Amino acid sequence: MKRLKFWGWGFEDDVVPQSEIEWMESTWGQRFGVSGFEVTPTPRAEDIRLPAPRLAIPAALTEICTTDHYERVLHSYSKSFPDIIRVYRRECPAPADVVALPRSDNEIAAVLDWCYEMNAAAIPFGGGSSVVGGVVPPSGGEYRGAVSIDMRHFNRVLEIDPVSHCARIQAGTFGPALEAQLKPSGLTLRHFPQSFRCSTLGGWIATRAGGHFATLYTHIDDLVENLRLVTPAGVIESRRLPGSGAGPSPDRMFIGSEGILGIITEAWMRVRPRPSFRATASVRFRDFYRGADAVRMLTQSNLYPTNCRLLDAEEAQYNGLADGTVSVLVVGFESADHPVGEWMKRALEICADHGGSYDPQDPSAEDESHRSGAAGRWRERFMFLPFFKEHMAARNIFRDSYETAITWDRFKDFHADIRAAGLEAIRKATGREGSVTCRFTHVYPDGPAPYLTFHGLSRSAARLLDDYWAVKSAASDAIIAGGGTITHHHAVGREHRPWYDRQRPELFARALGAAKRALDPKGLLNPGVLIDPIGPTASP
Amino acid sequence: MKRLKFWGWGFEDDVVPQSEIEWMESTWGQRFGVSGFEVTPTPRAEDIRLPAPRLAIPAALTEICTTDHYERVLHSYSKSFPDIIRVYRRECPAPADVVALPRSDNEIAAVLDWCYEMNAAAIPFGGGSSVVGGVVPPSGGEYRGAVSIDMRHFNRVLEIDPVSHCARIQAGTFGPALEAQLKPSGLTLRHFPQSFRCSTLGGWIATRAGGHFATLYTHIDDLVENLRLVTPAGVIESRRLPGSGAGPSPDRMFIGSEGILGIITEAWMRVRPRPSFRATASVRFRDFYRGADAVRMLTQSNLYPTNCRLLDAEEAQYNGLADGTVSVLVVGFESADHPVGEWMKRALEICADHGGSYDPQDPSAEDESHRSGAAGRWRERFMFLPFFKEHMAARNIFRDSYETAITWDRFKDFHADIRAAGLEAIRKATGREGSVTCRFTHVYPDGPAPYLTFHGLSRSAARLLDDYWAVKSAASDAIIAGGGTITHHHAVGREHRPWYDRQRPELFARALGAAKRALDPKGLLNPGVLIDPIGPTASP
Repeated sequence: MKRLKFWGWGFEDDVVPQSEIEWMESTWGQRFGVSGFEVTPTPRAEDIRLPAPRLAIPAALTEICTTDHYERVLHSYSKSFPDIIRVYRRECPAPADVVALPRSDNEIAAVLDWCYEMNAAAIPFGGGSSVVGGVVPPSGGEYRGAVSIDMRHFNRVLEIDPVSHCARIQAGTFGPALEAQLKPSGLTLRHFPQSFRCSTLGGWIATRAGGHFATLYTHIDDLVENLRLVTPAGVIESRRLPGSGAGPSPDRMFIGSEGILGIITEAWMRVRPRPSFRATASVRFRDFYRGADAVRMLTQSNLYPTNCRLLDAEEAQYNGLADGTVSVLVVGFESADHPVGEWMKRALEICADHGGSYDPQDPSAEDESHRSGAAGRWRERFMFLPFFKEHMAARNIFRDSYETAITWDRFKDFHADIRAAGLEAIRKATGREGSVTCRFTHVYPDGPAPYLTFHGLSRSAARLLDDYWAVKSAASDAIIAGGGTITHHHAVGREHRPWYDRQRPELFARALGAAKRALDPKGLLNPGVLIDPIGPTASP
Repeated sequence: MKRLKFWGWGFEDDVVPQSEIEWMESTWGQRFGVSGFEVTPTPRAEDIRLPAPRLAIPAALTEICTTDHYERVLHSYSKSFPDIIRVYRRECPAPADVVALPRSDNEIAAVLDWCYEMNAAAIPFGGGSSVVGGVVPPSGGEYRGAVSIDMRHFNRVLEIDPVSHCARIQAGTFGPALEAQLKPSGLTLRHFPQSFRCSTLGGWIATRAGGHFATLYTHIDDLVENLRLVTPAGVIESRRLPGSGAGPSPDRMFIGSEGILGIITEAWMRVRPRPSFRATASVRFRDFYRGADAVRMLTQSNLYPTNCRLLDAEEAQYNGLADGTVSVLVVGFESADHPVGEWMKRALEICADHGGSYDPQDPSAEDESHRSGAAGRWRERFMFLPFFKEHMAARNIFRDSYETAITWDRFKDFHADIRAAGLEAIRKATGREGSVTCRFTHVYPDGPAPYLTFHGLSRSAARLLDDYWAVKSAASDAIIAGGGTITHHHAVGREHRPWYDRQRPELFARALGAAKRALDPKGLLNPGVLIDPIGPTASP
């Protein structure tokens, strides 16, 4: 079994080619006006000093629990930028004491029982790809220790229902393993978040992951047919139903609950046949906001493109799609049932009506167009980007995103404001111009989900974390002030908490906290993520 | 302002024409082998004796509260079949003491404060069209009285956002008033439940109403952009967001909460342009299950027909669509953006592949086809059907539905079982053959929502309620045993409670009860609906 990196994105054998590193150094050196970078060496596991575990594994759990150094290190960080900075600093402020590797619901229940006995925090861990500190132990609180519960043994597609197009899948199944097990049936979940290779079904559900498609049923929320969870109070399993109006949806209470209510162990998921018809085109716009108007019309057309990603000029250039003078919209359709030429034809008419231009041969290419041309280059670079983060941290460049959603009527001002807030904060923190670029990851009839990426160069390694937070905070403040959501699909975790607290209705948090106390009375499940360990308790 | 009927469906001036009554008597007389019916006269308000109100309206609330006899009677019944039987029996087992007619959130809060002071049950009331006893006062419990909170003054579209295609709408707005206020903007909610004329936005949201469309975004759940509620603990308002991944959706906790967590006062709703392109066809199938196979392929094709209603042979005949030898599928597409001929062409190919036949001229009729022909007749009769219920109750015929959802892999056996359970129970209860027919109201890639309608003739008025419950219970037992949901879009109310209790995960009910206690610590909001007044409280 390949080992996950503890110091960055992906697996230990994921190595960014030297040529890409050189491209990155040259691009950003030029950008920041520096001739070279000081490089902090990649940490080895033995560079990270951990205190002795505060918990002794009981005899009954020795087979499924470990205090192995690498495992403890891996489970003490998320893939958030602050965590990457910490790991490069060889600091581990909140280490996991024990890593549990249960193989069944009963073994999870036994681990939770032990946590309850010991008053230890219990942290569900799928692929560990959280970019918001969603899988790291709490650093404060009255806990006797922290147990990270790694779901890697829940890695199977248990059952396929080819009639209803559904599959019962264990929560610890990683993206590629999930698709590989579905493949012989001709079915696919087609849920390809950027983290696909190193994240799991359970993680997607717990964080309301955004999927591959730009429109329609793309959020994992819509693909869940039922759920099974283990909570400290017992097992919860909802019925397999295509639809229901019987009370508030039980599943929706747990989708997005980020491990604070229970540990998802399996789900019946809605899958679909592999597509056999495709069309993809890339459309250029001189003006980003004209492109946004075209996207709005597309989302309101009921054509439901499967791909509809608008990149601003700088982002399009960075991704090798254009020369920096135009925004690019990658638009695509796919179907397992019928040719999609008619759909694409109408979509391109809408784009043309808004000043978009495209190469005439593109739209008719129905087969391999998604793997070639601009769209193909975008796909390649897209899966590659997260790997740069650790190499940038090593060079005192901070790189991260702020991603949100907003209604169309507020979009232009909102985009201008949050972009300006990011640029201004970079300038102020680092004394240098930085970069803030934007693309749409998902679009809805009532608004887009803008995803902004920022880069800045700190004056020194010592300033990197503070500079990062100055920028991230300013951007997050602007998002909340402008009426957006603090996260569209990255989740809340620990790092978005201050802004989430300003976003969610206070009484909703109180209701959610009460629901948590019913299932986790001691507040030991992922404490501090989403809400305070036992939630707001003020009486009305 | 037109007055709602207290004894049946719709408004006082909704009168079923004598010719339709004769058609109904002749159809069912023939069916049950009787030459005529004893008819219980329609009750007048003064026929219903109510005890004196148990609550005295305080001075501060006299302007917005009443103990008017008609109002109390209206607010003491739902439109469930048992309630219609009770009203025809002139029985009122659980009368509302006071009817409140607040005009603002503050006035709702004042009414709730008074209920808290008096320990009175507080029952939210929109159009009162619940068919499951969702709006009637509790008959037991320790309440000092019951206040029905009628939302009729919350009847305005407050704001329209033509860019994002959204509208801020007050919860007490009835269907026709809502559409009339949207019309000048060219937008429409296009949410047309069968209750459309006599139900409200707030009621649709509180009960997870199923809409007009057969596929895609049709449930009110998907059309809600934000919510505002008044709870005993204060006001909750979520952000207007096209999408969000920030924790479990706050809105989804309240959508379907049937008034037990708070009173919805307004919502930003996703609307859309009025369609200008349409195609509708009706397809005949010799075999209902072949028709179901065609529908399954249609739902899995990603064509997303806006209409896709399969009626079994008996139901198609009853609705005047066919001669009783064939099942009929009404399939349609609509768009405000593009002609839908290509979509319909492919849909009809799929139908033909499964043995469906249709008139060749139908599919090309793109304009008025939805108002004429079989589809048009279906629409007319469909809106008319609920009015028959009271006239049947007056003739000792019980008529009601059981509606559910199930995955495709289980559908055929499940349908056969629940249909047989209904027919057998009618036979056993009444000593006569009855009728159980089926149509699909909504369809999903993973399964249909079958809607079964049953009719039986009781031997006497005295037996009507018991006979009804014998049949409804047997059918509901079969639904739960077969893995379905006790309701797809009629809600739980009081009448589906025993089966809902077997359906929902016990720990979910405990979490929901805890959330309720956080918002409504005395358990006064719609007590007994969905969960017991303060919910299950057993500790883990």
